Amino acid sequence: MRRAIYPGSFDPITNGHLDVIHRAVRLFDELVVGIALNDQKHTSTLFSLPERVSLLEKVCAGISNVRVATLDGLLVDFARAHHATAIVRGLRAVSDFEFEFQMALMNRKMEPLIETIFLMPKEEYSYLSSRIVKEIARLGGNVDSFVPGCVALALKEKFSNR
Amino acid sequence: MRRAIYPGSFDPITNGHLDVIHRAVRLFDELVVGIALNDQKHTSTLFSLPERVSLLEKVCAGISNVRVATLDGLLVDFARAHHATAIVRGLRAVSDFEFEFQMALMNRKMEPLIETIFLMPKEEYSYLSSRIVKEIARLGGNVDSFVPGCVALALKEKFSNR
Amino acid sequence: MRRAIYPGSFDPITNGHLDVIHRAVRLFDELVVGIALNDQKHTSTLFSLPERVSLLEKVCAGISNVRVATLDGLLVDFARAHHATAIVRGLRAVSDFEFEFQMALMNRKMEPLIETIFLMPKEEYSYLSSRIVKEIARLGGNVDSFVPGCVALALKEKFSNR
Amino acid sequence: MRRAIYPGSFDPITNGHLDVIHRAVRLFDELVVGIALNDQKHTSTLFSLPERVSLLEKVCAGISNVRVATLDGLLVDFARAHHATAIVRGLRAVSDFEFEFQMALMNRKMEPLIETIFLMPKEEYSYLSSRIVKEIARLGGNVDSFVPGCVALALKEKFSNR
Amino acid sequence: MRRAIYPGSFDPITNGHLDVIHRAVRLFDELVVGIALNDQKHTSTLFSLPERVSLLEKVCAGISNVRVATLDGLLVDFARAHHATAIVRGLRAVSDFEFEFQMALMNRKMEPLIETIFLMPKEEYSYLSSRIVKEIARLGGNVDSFVPGCVALALKEKFSNR
Amino acid sequence: MRRAIYPGSFDPITNGHLDVIHRAVRLFDELVVGIALNDQKHTSTLFSLPERVSLLEKVCAGISNVRVATLDGLLVDFARAHHATAIVRGLRAVSDFEFEFQMALMNRKMEPLIETIFLMPKEEYSYLSSRIVKEIARLGGNVDSFVPGCVALALKEKFSNR
Repeated sequence: MRRAIYPGSFDPITNGHLDVIHRAVRLFDELVVGIALNDQKHTSTLFSLPERVSLLEKVCAGISNVRVATLDGLLVDFARAHHATAIVRGLRAVSDFEFEFQMALMNRKMEPLIETIFLMPKEEYSYLSSRIVKEIARLGGNVDSFVPGCVALALKEKFSNR
Repeated sequence: MRRAIYPGSFDPITNGHLDVIHRAVRLFDELVVGIALNDQKHTSTLFSLPERVSLLEKVCAGISNVRVATLDGLLVDFARAHHATAIVRGLRAVSDFEFEFQMALMNRKMEPLIETIFLMPKEEYSYLSSRIVKEIARLGGNVDSFVPGCVALALKEKFSNR
Repeated sequence: MRRAIYPGSFDPITNGHLDVIHRAVRLFDELVVGIALNDQKHTSTLFSLPERVSLLEKVCAGISNVRVATLDGLLVDFARAHHATAIVRGLRAVSDFEFEFQMALMNRKMEPLIETIFLMPKEEYSYLSSRIVKEIARLGGNVDSFVPGCVALALKEKFSNR
Repeated sequence: MRRAIYPGSFDPITNGHLDVIHRAVRLFDELVVGIALNDQKHTSTLFSLPERVSLLEKVCAGISNVRVATLDGLLVDFARAHHATAIVRGLRAVSDFEFEFQMALMNRKMEPLIETIFLMPKEEYSYLSSRIVKEIARLGGNVDSFVPGCVALALKEKFSNR
Repeated sequence: MRRAIYPGSFDPITNGHLDVIHRAVRLFDELVVGIALNDQKHTSTLFSLPERVSLLEKVCAGISNVRVATLDGLLVDFARAHHATAIVRGLRAVSDFEFEFQMALMNRKMEPLIETIFLMPKEEYSYLSSRIVKEIARLGGNVDSFVPGCVALALKEKFSNR
Repeated sequence: MRRAIYPGSFDPITNGHLDVIHRAVRLFDELVVGIALNDQKHTSTLFSLPERVSLLEKVCAGISNVRVATLDGLLVDFARAHHATAIVRGLRAVSDFEFEFQMALMNRKMEPLIETIFLMPKEEYSYLSSRIVKEIARLGGNVDSFVPGCVALALKEKFSNR
């Protein structure tokens, strides 16, 4: 059985992330979505870890071979613990790629047996990022075509509470 | 009549921004410079919004078809409210372009009738950014060749008060 | 009146080019599509200059303020002769941008009064190039969703004659 | 069973290609290396198609789940004919990535069910390309650390015959 | 005598930095490593300035023509004060290069007589950055192959104290 | 004594090349400009090797520590034969950098003791390339501000003879 990890902060999950998940489950027998406690810049997230887990579980409910797990500690330790053979990353743009490449090389140095593979989300999602979606929602814009329905709702609630 | 928007945080305006303004006014009947309340990273600005408005109005005083306005909320809402047909952006470098591209695609998704167009500032301004100018001024360096005179003065005052 | 030039070899015109044309005509009073005799690499074109002119005229027939002209000699001389205030370029990708940027700076050096502006084609056309379309047609692939109908037909004829 | 395609002109195969093959066989049940008749620029290859097939078969002899096949026609037709679920590509550098990205989007447009995945070769192979290896061999340089032994030999013979 | 400056925040020094130092000392008669008080983003450093000076002095102890100095104020003022003819920078990746390029042009504008030169660290260090090393150490990962021994020790202490 | 090599096809030398030469001679005791027989794409050059040598010698006549030599064979062999400690390269743009980086890593692999260093030409030359200059001259454009006087003359003669 081949298992892959799809790590991220998913704050919140967008249609771009979901597209990558749909592509990855066709390539592997099982996909573990690993939600990182904090994002890489250590800034506080908009959604708490339990909120992000809950949103991802709702969104992935209909996809049979996906599991959601929380990821604290090193990604390679997480991957080893889940007996994964691959780490899946979505590519959005070149500047993106540079950093992804750097992380992937670092992870390989620490664990040569786990391969990082890159997938391309649908081109209409190439402009999507959690950061931009939050910015639009914060300014009162409509994000229905960028995130799953339950996420759009959660964003609306977050910003109306402010 | 064709009207365009030139959005930014202008904290402070540099000769590179001014160069883009001079190019844009030759392509459109009116240019509205939209000063964003905060920059995209939500870090606090060096100059307050009224200070930035005042500096831009001084700098653009001699250019006939330019108006200065403050921009809070979504850029596309601002552009619609001003009946603009285009959003003008200056390109400085590749990494710059990546993010600009992403924002432009997102804006187009929200408002397909407003086109984002990219202009190239003079190559000697390609290294200029508000951030670098502030850094040099903070360290006591001379910024006279990077910003208009009134901005250089304002920067000197800011950092002598510290 | 503001007139712009959209130069290229158009060997053949793709839906990506057509998308840029549709965007440009909304920004200018007239658009002159300038078909270059040869492409920049001086390799021979698949379609002759009269064939490319004819295809472009068919494709642009329904767009009111577009004219098709052949371009030999320097682009800036062509732009001056047509009293253009701008040169329009479509951006596809970063590597693309680098070369475009270089050409635009060179053209500006030769003629400072003509501005180069960059537009973004629809993201689903971001992968399109005349070269790839020709390659697919040569190998017998279906190019109907990449080029206008008359171009698809012309490509089929070209390669069946070989 | 999951089968993947690794296409290329392999003129000749380098240690970088071989590294990608070793990574891909760990992710799929079978890997078909597809040798394209001509390279994408339609320039003539240094090694004939039978020579390239023979070199690849020698080099891959010890790897159990690899097959070598010749690829003429569209890549997606080839992938369909081999019931592949994925196309494997190695990433070398950013400029590389741009073109790869474009090809992958084009292929997906023609065949949405076949995923393109990107793998990173070992960083010490990041500078390797068939073109540079041929250039060095042509100038009499030693290529032993860049290509498998039988390829180094074949290159020496090619250029001594000239 | 030709003297060069190698500036940075070195929070902490990595094997990649050390590799650049070893390359630079072969090109110049003396190299001054300038440790900046703060990093460019004005975020607080993990190691204090005296700690970073001490680590660098330990690491460079065996290299004859290297001096360590603290750098506050403008880089070009520092370079002038040390009678340097060049500023040395290591290149890691493209996005890196963009910013380096911008800084170098700005410095040259302020002091045309000091040249910025770019060196390439060993490719196996191309993925290394102080930020990633700190992240791994913080999560309890082993950083022995990324930093000199005394730095690995210092990192372990820092994070065990937390 | 420190000697550096500045290799290229110089078909013909531009003001950008000349700017790099002026920068390099301030960093090294001697600079050897190595004119490659053919360019990297093996396309025939516009100027013959003796013509290029003669133009470079004229242009560099006033610079004391520069020598012009022809380069056939491997660059690293040439550098070794001239007892050089460094190879100098000018950087123009990102796409440029990618290829330069690849060549530099390859050369280092073959000769670890010779360092490649990158210099930035003046930003107003960042758009200059021999290829674009030849294209403009071929179309009858004025190239006086892009190349030294004797090169402008030589270009005019070349294209009037055609």
